Amino acid sequence: MKLIMAVVQDKDSNRLSSALVESNFKATKLASTGGFLKSGNTTFIIGTDDHRVNKLLSVIRENCESRDQMIAPISPMGGNADAYVPHPVEVEVGGATVFVLSIDQFEQF
Amino acid sequence: MKLIMAVVQDKDSNRLSSALVESNFKATKLASTGGFLKSGNTTFIIGTDDHRVNKLLSVIRENCESRDQMIAPISPMGGNADAYVPHPVEVEVGGATVFVLSIDQFEQF
Amino acid sequence: MKLIMAVVQDKDSNRLSSALVESNFKATKLASTGGFLKSGNTTFIIGTDDHRVNKLLSVIRENCESRDQMIAPISPMGGNADAYVPHPVEVEVGGATVFVLSIDQFEQF
Ligand code: NI
Ligand code: NI
Ligand code: NI
Repeated sequence: MKLIMAVVQDKDSNRLSSALVESNFKATKLASTGGFLKSGNTTFIIGTDDHRVNKLLSVIRENCESRDQMIAPISPMGGNADAYVPHPVEVEVGGATVFVLSIDQFEQF
Repeated sequence: MKLIMAVVQDKDSNRLSSALVESNFKATKLASTGGFLKSGNTTFIIGTDDHRVNKLLSVIRENCESRDQMIAPISPMGGNADAYVPHPVEVEVGGATVFVLSIDQFEQF
Repeated sequence: MKLIMAVVQDKDSNRLSSALVESNFKATKLASTGGFLKSGNTTFIIGTDDHRVNKLLSVIRENCESRDQMIAPISPMGGNADAYVPHPVEVEVGGATVFVLSIDQFEQF
């Protein structure tokens, strides 16, 4: 039995929750704030059999892996709107920091 | 020294807090959301001597164990109120998911 | 690789965050509530190399160690204001409860 703690971006949190349910993993979500990753984060606590850890890690990777995304920048306030041609910029989003811990004992009441 | 993480239903959270204080356990509560259990959850982090782990597990079990409860269902909206005879239904409430972890080092500053 | 969980008082939380960044530690903050310490708490989750654990513990100690502080008491309501001479009282603030855990596996996606 292992305990996995995974810190992921809020924007990937709902998608990861659904993917965990589909793959029959039981998770608890804790609200957390920045540090490991740039924007608001969610920390997942997941208990699983040793032999399913690799499957769990691939579910997290598939749904949260760091990737580049094109976003439309905000127009500058009070600028000359006629002269301003906005073009999308590439930003890195997503990413997961994952700790796998051994459990001495696991109980459900 | 062990670290115990216990995910319990919000409805059992205050009762468990009081019982932990009475039994001289020190706990921190983290707000969490569903997954292991059906409704809103609270995650407790508790540090304790190895020889008190069994006592701690029985305090959690006594206060959070899954049990059936009769609840009055909501009347159906727009139904024929005269013909509707509500009767209580049995639902499962409570429950705890508990991880016991070994600690390498414990410090208090 | 170690996982450190540190429960500190909210009032020390921002200062500790800054000190961790300065010393190149990556942390996630979880909102938590009382138990180990008297007022509102924050739980930090920090992953680090084994050989930096002592440095991390000293950063936590320097920023969160329990200390006495003089505070001005609130004037009693409805008392005789002329006769009341407020004098500061000494209270204990700060403090940290720290768990160091071994990690089986650490991944970043
Ligand atoms: Ni299995
Ligand atoms: Ni003892
Ligand atoms: Ni190193």
